Amino acid sequence: MSQNKKIPMRPVSIIGVGCTPFGKSDSSIIDLAIQSSVEAINSANVKYDDIQSIYLGNFVGERLANQGSLGAMLADRLDISDIPATKTEGACASGGIAFRHAFLTIALGLYDFVLATGVEKMTSSSTPDVTAALATAGDMEMEMYAGLTFPGAFAMIMASHMQKYGTTREQIASVSVKNHRNGTNNPNAMFQKEINVEDVITSREISEPIRLFDCPPISDGAASVLLCPTEIAKNFVNNPVNILGSGHASGPISLSGMNDLTSFSATAIAANEAYAMSGLRAEDIDVIEVHDCFSIAEIIALEDLGFFNKGEGGPATESGITALNGKYPTNPSGGLIAKGHPVGATGIAQIYELTKQLQGLSTNQTNDPETALAHNLGGIGALSTVHILGKTNGTK
Amino acid sequence: MSQNKKIPMRPVSIIGVGCTPFGKSDSSIIDLAIQSSVEAINSANVKYDDIQSIYLGNFVGERLANQGSLGAMLADRLDISDIPATKTEGACASGGIAFRHAFLTIALGLYDFVLATGVEKMTSSSTPDVTAALATAGDMEMEMYAGLTFPGAFAMIMASHMQKYGTTREQIASVSVKNHRNGTNNPNAMFQKEINVEDVITSREISEPIRLFDCPPISDGAASVLLCPTEIAKNFVNNPVNILGSGHASGPISLSGMNDLTSFSATAIAANEAYAMSGLRAEDIDVIEVHDCFSIAEIIALEDLGFFNKGEGGPATESGITALNGKYPTNPSGGLIAKGHPVGATGIAQIYELTKQLQGLSTNQTNDPETALAHNLGGIGALSTVHILGKTNGTK
Repeated sequence: MSQNKKIPMRPVSIIGVGCTPFGKSDSSIIDLAIQSSVEAINSANVKYDDIQSIYLGNFVGERLANQGSLGAMLADRLDISDIPATKTEGACASGGIAFRHAFLTIALGLYDFVLATGVEKMTSSSTPDVTAALATAGDMEMEMYAGLTFPGAFAMIMASHMQKYGTTREQIASVSVKNHRNGTNNPNAMFQKEINVEDVITSREISEPIRLFDCPPISDGAASVLLCPTEIAKNFVNNPVNILGSGHASGPISLSGMNDLTSFSATAIAANEAYAMSGLRAEDIDVIEVHDCFSIAEIIALEDLGFFNKGEGGPATESGITALNGKYPTNPSGGLIAKGHPVGATGIAQIYELTKQLQGLSTNQTNDPETALAHNLGGIGALSTVHILGKTNGTK
Repeated sequence: MSQNKKIPMRPVSIIGVGCTPFGKSDSSIIDLAIQSSVEAINSANVKYDDIQSIYLGNFVGERLANQGSLGAMLADRLDISDIPATKTEGACASGGIAFRHAFLTIALGLYDFVLATGVEKMTSSSTPDVTAALATAGDMEMEMYAGLTFPGAFAMIMASHMQKYGTTREQIASVSVKNHRNGTNNPNAMFQKEINVEDVITSREISEPIRLFDCPPISDGAASVLLCPTEIAKNFVNNPVNILGSGHASGPISLSGMNDLTSFSATAIAANEAYAMSGLRAEDIDVIEVHDCFSIAEIIALEDLGFFNKGEGGPATESGITALNGKYPTNPSGGLIAKGHPVGATGIAQIYELTKQLQGLSTNQTNDPETALAHNLGGIGALSTVHILGKTNGTK
C-alpha cells in the first residue's frame, strides 16, 4: 500500500547547497559534514538559528570513521544543538532518505527550514575493511557470509543483462567513458581524466565481467542542502529550485530474492511515486543523476526509471543519448564512477549537481534544463529514492 | 527555533506492540526484529500489506552485528518490501526517534499504518568491542579518543550531582534497587532478582563512583509498535493507546560542552515540546519510563522532566515516590538497568511497557494509570525524545 492520496503538501524549494571535494581528505568525518553544511547555509542566506531540524545521511560512520550520533554532533558543532537531529541510514541510499525527510517535514508543515547533509569517511580504512563494511548493506546471513561482495553481486547482474538483452561489454564501458569525461569538468570530482572504452575493458579484473573502471572509487566527502517552503524561498535567494516529486521504496535485499537480476523494483516504485507527485513523466526530464555504483547500474537505472525500455539502455548510452548534449544527459557531475562515492553523501551530492544545473551554474552545464531527476540506490537494490526537481513549476 | 505552531495533526494511536526477551539471545539481529514486529502486527490485527512504512531504530548494527540496511531487510523478511524503510540512528535514542517518525508521518497525514521497530544485537561481541562501539555515541575527536568511556562520563556526572546537591550514594543506589525489584515481575527482563543498597554499593568498581549494579547490562533484544490514526484505531483493537505528545531535541555531544554536568538540556527541551503538544504537565503523568542508562541518569531525567526540582530526585527516589505504588511510578519494566539495554530497542521497549500499563495488562501493573511518559536519551545527553501516552483523551 502506498502513501495516502491527496495529502495537502506545501511546495518546497532548495535555497542552498554545498559540497566538498570528493576524494581522499585529511578532514575528519564531522569536519567534512560541517564544511558542506556551512556552504549550504551561507548560500541560502538563512541564519543558523532559523534551522529547525537536521537530517544526516550516513551509512557506516560508526564502523569506518569511529563516530556515531553524527546528526546531533553536526547540530552541536554548528551551535544549533537544541533542535531535533536524526541520522538516516539506508546503505548507499542514506543521503536520498535524509533529503526526503527534510522535504517531507517541510511539505507537511512541521518545519520551515531543514538542513540535510550526507557524509562518509572511507579512505582511512583498508580496502578489505571497506569492502567488509559495505557488504553489510547486503543480506549477510543469506549471501554475504557465503562470500558475496558488492562487485560480485553486480558482476552477476551485469552478466545477466548482457545475456538477456545482448548488451555488449563496449556499451557498458561507454557509461564509464561518459562519466569520466563529465568528471573532467567537475572540480569536486575525484577523477578528472578522460578514459576510453579500451581502457575500461582492459583495466584490472575485479569480478568478471566487472573491471576496475566499471567501479566507483572509495572516497571521502560530504554534501548538503537547505530547504524551505517555496512561498518564502525568494525572500532568501533569487534562484530557488523546486522539489516537484519524491519517492522512496524498498525491494528484495538479496540477489536470491530478485525475480529478475536485470531490474530493481524499488527504483521503479520510487520513480512512479515521484512521477505521480510531480505530474511529469520520464520524457519530461531534462537532466538526470543516477546511482552508477557500477557502470551496469546506470543502464539498469535508466531503464527502471522509464527513460529507455528494458534492454535499450546499453545501445542508447553508446549512441550518445545520455551524453551532455544528448536527449537525456545523465550524470553530468561524473556520477559515482568519476566524482567518487562517499556513500552517505552521494544522494545529496546528486541534488547539489542538479540544483546547479537548474540554476545554470553547473561546471558541466547542460542546455537550459527546466526539470531534473535524482536516483539513489541502496544495497543490491534494497532501497531507492527518486526526486524530481524543477526550475519553475516543472511544467514544460 | 522549534517546530511550527498550530500544525494540523491527526490524533495517532498505538494498536499493536511486541517485545522479545532482553538478554543473551541465540537469534540474529534480523530474527530479533522479526520476532517483535510479528508480535506487534498480529496483536494489531492489521494485514501485513496494510503497512505503508517502516522505521527501524538501531545504533551499531553495522559494527557489532555486521548487518546494515536493517529497515529494508525487515521489510523484505516480512514480505512487504515495496514500502519505504528507514533506519534512524541517534545512539541510545535511536528507538525513540524511530517511534517519533512513525508518529509524525501518520499525524501529518502521509501514512495510515506504520511499524516502528528497535533492535540491537550486542552479546556476540567482547565487552571491549562493545565499549568501543558505544563510545562512538560521544565526541570521539574531542573526548573519547583521550580515553573517556560512557561509564567514565556518567561517573563524573554522578560525582557532580552528589557534590552539587548532596545526593547520597545510597539514594542513587536506591534507583537500582527499585528497578531490579520491578524487573522481577517482567518476564522479558534480563535480571529478575532483587538486590539491596548494600549490594549496589559494594558491587565491582566500574568507574568510581559508578559500580556494576549502577549500570545496565550488554543485551540483545527488539521491540515494536504499530501505529494508526486514532479515528480508525478501534476498528482493529478495543484498547488502543493514544499518543498525546512528542518531543525531540539535541544538546551538547560532549561533557566539555555542557554548562552543568547535572542536567541534560535536550531532555528538558524535548519534554517541553511533548508537554505543550499534550496539554499536560509533569504532575498529570501517572506512570513513567525513563532512560536509566546509569542509576544517576534516572534521577537526572526525573528532574529534567519536571517531576522533581533539581537536587530532589535522590531523596524522592529513596523515599519511594518512584516505586510502583508511589506518586510517580518509574521504570515499572525494570528500566535499562534490570530489563537490559539493547540500545536501538530501548526507546520502543519503553513504549511497549507503557502501552501495557495503560491497557492494564502489564506484568508489573501500576494503579489504573491514564497517562504515561517515555524518555529516551542518546549519548551523553546529545539527543532526547519524550513521548506522552494516554488511555483516553489524556485529560484527567
